Amino acid sequence: MTIPKSVQSLIEAFERLPGIGPKTAARLTYHLLRAPKEESEALAKAAGQLKEKTMLCSVCKNITESDPCAIDQDTSRDSAIVCVVEEPLDVLALEKSGAFRGKYHVLHGVISPLNNIGPEELFIKDLLYRMRKEEITELILALNPSMEGEATSLYLHRLLSPLGVKVTRIARGLPVGGDLEYADDITLKRAVDGRMEY
Amino acid sequence: MTIPKSVQSLIEAFERLPGIGPKTAARLTYHLLRAPKEESEALAKAAGQLKEKTMLCSVCKNITESDPCAIDQDTSRDSAIVCVVEEPLDVLALEKSGAFRGKYHVLHGVISPLNNIGPEELFIKDLLYRMRKEEITELILALNPSMEGEATSLYLHRLLSPLGVKVTRIARGLPVGGDLEYADDITLKRAVDGRMEY
Repeated sequence: MTIPKSVQSLIEAFERLPGIGPKTAARLTYHLLRAPKEESEALAKAAGQLKEKTMLCSVCKNITESDPCAIDQDTSRDSAIVCVVEEPLDVLALEKSGAFRGKYHVLHGVISPLNNIGPEELFIKDLLYRMRKEEITELILALNPSMEGEATSLYLHRLLSPLGVKVTRIARGLPVGGDLEYADDITLKRAVDGRMEY
Repeated sequence: MTIPKSVQSLIEAFERLPGIGPKTAARLTYHLLRAPKEESEALAKAAGQLKEKTMLCSVCKNITESDPCAIDQDTSRDSAIVCVVEEPLDVLALEKSGAFRGKYHVLHGVISPLNNIGPEELFIKDLLYRMRKEEITELILALNPSMEGEATSLYLHRLLSPLGVKVTRIARGLPVGGDLEYADDITLKRAVDGRMEY
């Protein structure tokens, strides 16, 4: 194969990203070759600064450029309610929805014995520390409705309820636009179990 | 939205790439945040060097780090047959297939009046120059079987045939693994028109 080395190394860098195969990696690289120089340079600069400029917030463990992060510094937010999520991306999703105006705590994963991830590998200790230090009245568990997410929710519920805090979890049910006919059994069961009065 | 600036700029850089929407861009960025520092740095370095180290080969207009490119320098290749393609990626595809051992000429686009791209915008003049200078006996038109690709092929055929060179084009028909039942009418018509003896 006669492909320039600098082209090949960008293809390889793209290929290492999740969901990007060899063909897409080549397409992205050749797009940048065609595009103005500024585009590849903006990508280079942003990728280079990403790790240098960011850190984990010492309070909520979200990704931030300043410690504590903007959310934790925001006094207009309700600091008595803390939403526990798996990943920084989940904070982004919740913030975009505008559904929540409290604080967050990012676990950076879920308990997964198959992958050798126990409670010690997650930021659970930091959550316990926060609960002693801050005045938290409610913890919302907003983990993904996967096997590991459910198990981690259960673990956190058992761990935290005795500490006198209200532990809730986000509702499971049919998504907006979802179709009753095509919903799986467990989703339907949870939608019925979680029914509410009008 | 409370999202760190350095994270936001990488998301935006990814979003500018073709086929990558806001969600994928965020997913890729947060993957790099989780991944070892080397991964984002490799991407930064490769993207930064891409435009600096590469240029267009003065002969075939393919992307290269040395001029003339490796293919044009390869004396074992048949320089009497030149395959005309739209994009550098097409050279890559043909090279990977091993279907062709001649030289290439990259047009860098197709004639597309809707996008204000006429023959002057493509490297057609350079092809004419090559035909005067080199001893080319056959030109294989390997443009994409799109409306613009077909029109450009026709244009090149009319322009180049009078110069005493054999102008051929790659076969159109059913792809391997394709299904007669689901093939469109034009593909079927071309497959029948292009039938060959056993």
